[in-house]
Amino acid sequence: VSAEEAPIGSVSAESPAATRADQARGARAGILVTGTEVLTGRVADRNGPWLADRLEELGVDLAYIAIVGDRREDMLAALRFMAEQGLDVVLTSGGLGPTADDLTAEVVGEFQGREMVLDEALEERIAEILRPLAKRWPNLDMDAIRQSNRKQAVIPTGASILEPVGTAPGLVVGPAQPGAGPTVVVLPGPPRELQPMWRAAVETESLRAALAGATVYSRRMLRLFGIPESEIAETLRAAERDGLELDRLEITTCLRRGEIEVVTRYEPAAARVYEAFVAVVRARHADTLFSEDGSSVDEQVATLLRGVSPGRPLTIATVESCTGGLLAARLTELPGASEYMRGGIVAYSNDAKISEADVPAELIERHGAVSSEVAQALAEGAQARLGADVGVGVTGVAGPDGGTAEKPVGLVCLSVAGPAGALLTRSVSLPGGRADVRDRTTTVALHMVRRLLVDLGADGS
Amino acid sequence: VSAEEAPIGSVSAESPAATRADQARGARAGILVTGTEVLTGRVADRNGPWLADRLEELGVDLAYIAIVGDRREDMLAALRFMAEQGLDVVLTSGGLGPTADDLTAEVVGEFQGREMVLDEALEERIAEILRPLAKRWPNLDMDAIRQSNRKQAVIPTGASILEPVGTAPGLVVGPAQPGAGPTVVVLPGPPRELQPMWRAAVETESLRAALAGATVYSRRMLRLFGIPESEIAETLRAAERDGLELDRLEITTCLRRGEIEVVTRYEPAAARVYEAFVAVVRARHADTLFSEDGSSVDEQVATLLRGVSPGRPLTIATVESCTGGLLAARLTELPGASEYMRGGIVAYSNDAKISEADVPAELIERHGAVSSEVAQALAEGAQARLGADVGVGVTGVAGPDGGTAEKPVGLVCLSVAGPAGALLTRSVSLPGGRADVRDRTTTVALHMVRRLLVDLGADGS
Repeated sequence: VSAEEAPIGSVSAESPAATRADQARGARAGILVTGTEVLTGRVADRNGPWLADRLEELGVDLAYIAIVGDRREDMLAALRFMAEQGLDVVLTSGGLGPTADDLTAEVVGEFQGREMVLDEALEERIAEILRPLAKRWPNLDMDAIRQSNRKQAVIPTGASILEPVGTAPGLVVGPAQPGAGPTVVVLPGPPRELQPMWRAAVETESLRAALAGATVYSRRMLRLFGIPESEIAETLRAAERDGLELDRLEITTCLRRGEIEVVTRYEPAAARVYEAFVAVVRARHADTLFSEDGSSVDEQVATLLRGVSPGRPLTIATVESCTGGLLAARLTELPGASEYMRGGIVAYSNDAKISEADVPAELIERHGAVSSEVAQALAEGAQARLGADVGVGVTGVAGPDGGTAEKPVGLVCLSVAGPAGALLTRSVSLPGGRADVRDRTTTVALHMVRRLLVDLGADGS
Repeated sequence: VSAEEAPIGSVSAESPAATRADQARGARAGILVTGTEVLTGRVADRNGPWLADRLEELGVDLAYIAIVGDRREDMLAALRFMAEQGLDVVLTSGGLGPTADDLTAEVVGEFQGREMVLDEALEERIAEILRPLAKRWPNLDMDAIRQSNRKQAVIPTGASILEPVGTAPGLVVGPAQPGAGPTVVVLPGPPRELQPMWRAAVETESLRAALAGATVYSRRMLRLFGIPESEIAETLRAAERDGLELDRLEITTCLRRGEIEVVTRYEPAAARVYEAFVAVVRARHADTLFSEDGSSVDEQVATLLRGVSPGRPLTIATVESCTGGLLAARLTELPGASEYMRGGIVAYSNDAKISEADVPAELIERHGAVSSEVAQALAEGAQARLGADVGVGVTGVAGPDGGTAEKPVGLVCLSVAGPAGALLTRSVSLPGGRADVRDRTTTVALHMVRRLLVDLGADGS
């Protein structure tokens, strides 16, 4: 059992461990996500997290995210709650469509005490947007569509219009009396529409005014792989004992996909405290701290493949069993992956391992398909069959069935073969269900690739 | 351009379209997700959606999900808001760990007006849980850990304890005066701990009492692929014109991964209205309604592969380019996939397409790597190389680079080759960024596989 596997398997304490600074009063915001499909969990909300990031960039303190269904009273109650908390800005997402249950514009108008009026110029612009649709979908009932889209041109008096990205316009709606409550930014639900529209919203006079006085914080991230979260908590206590003013930093640690992320937010004046904190982490966790600039292991592997021998990227290939293609998918996630990714083989059956990855049948017979020996043969098969500099082999028991006393669900064998005979092979025991085991296996594999490439670079220099 | 691709490309209106019934007053609940890492969007919340599903199963109406950071005042304000809305139950997740910023138990105690006391028996049980950890991590400072875990045994007087799954106990904390406010169920943040603990929570007397009187609703789902959401909105209007009492159904439609989901919740007495509604959808959308029982296309493909020739599952294999393994990963997502999934090849480079999938080099030269011809060769290569009954080939431009005027980003060519020369080949133009294009391609591919298998079954019967 290697040091690298255990942290993934030992999540017993709660995330997160954090120390928090008393905060200077800057602009504060809330996010109101609307939509019964989001509230009931059928659709994951992508807008809340995305907007949270944008607010953080602007130095705006996010206090609440609320998710409500498409019900007038629930939306109003949530808006009033946020107003009572003294928030300066509320961002809403969703509920701007053409159907009767799309209520957001109307509810926000009522909340701000502004009458709803038809904006005829806006109605015409929406009609313009709908025209090309008729060509794509020749059998649509265009009258019905135009009629229901007229509703989207009815907006609160005095609101600033954010031009539609799809067919739904967004709005920036201030309180009827300046300063009497939050400015509400009304955005559509589809992330593809919301994101460009947010960029337009931050340019509006009314939102700029509402956000004036935001403190610009710095935010930095460390990533570690290979220790339990409780060790970081202990490091925080140690740093405090050593006299570091940790109360000037807002530190949050959490476990994600088997790695520990330590995110620190601080005012510019506390930069030296942060540097001292990083020095403590570096000293205590040299072997597990792999990222000081927030870069992911995926990005680091890409950079290392491109950079080990300048001008000629090293190439990589995979042969996977239990992960079924997830590792190859992760290696092709970043744009430009074709520079280094040759390809992969999903050898889910034993036959495929033999025919597609040249694993000797008797190796599988002798050691079993889930074994270090077969993992190594898969890695070498990836190298040889796809003509890659680096080959990765993965075989394991993802479950829920197929486990034995000797080889239980969660046992995964991984191997990375590099140039000139470089080789790294490991067996790990991963916790969780089928999806967890498969996902975390890809994290372990990427860290093994990183380790091999870092060692290669060190040898070469 | 086939009928099947367009809906994916034409999301211009907002999700969702819904009609809502006035609801009988049953038990109402709220969910309070705590954690700065969730609020700031670095970690996606998985507990809110999961708990929302559980509440729906119990017939409890979920009114709000709120996400707050690890700050005492924000947590208290959110709890008080939910109490003011008259909710019967509030579920919290997170903030039960050993570090100073894990505040939930204490804040809930204060909210319910209950004093915090050390439960020594609980402290001993937590110590028992920590003992084996010492063996796994020989260098840990066990004293420091025991000390910080003592904090986890300090609980509000009169609370029911939910035994730890990790090291954190959960709690069910009623109001100090019966009926004076919501019962709060305090659950840990890691889904692996929260989920089993929830099952224990619903067995407690105090939660059962708080949930008494919940209406048990029926919930059914239809899935469609190949039409825009606005057509469903029009079908709802048509059904209403025909005199269907749609106000007795709570219908939500939304677009997910390129499919339309129509979810309907109703009281048992409205079952006949629902059946009439399904009949209308079936009549108007016969060619695009693929699931009446909520089953996913993934599940249907698995069932079809197992069932077309009873006793001998058909096997399937993939050769993917732009999706980089995502399709194989999706085909191996369901337990037992090894019965039918032979494996796959990620032919990311042209060399790999030639050497691993036997695509003739001159075919790539003549038509380009992204072409129907190459897609078909990949599908046939999957069949031949992996000895599978069904082969799927995918090649496309996922972007952000690599697009041309003739072959823009989002163009994907897919082919499915089946037994006895059965073949389905399609080019689609998918919207969105690199991740969207890759993900939606897998949906299109699965629907093509389904279509081919359904036709095979129809021929064979």
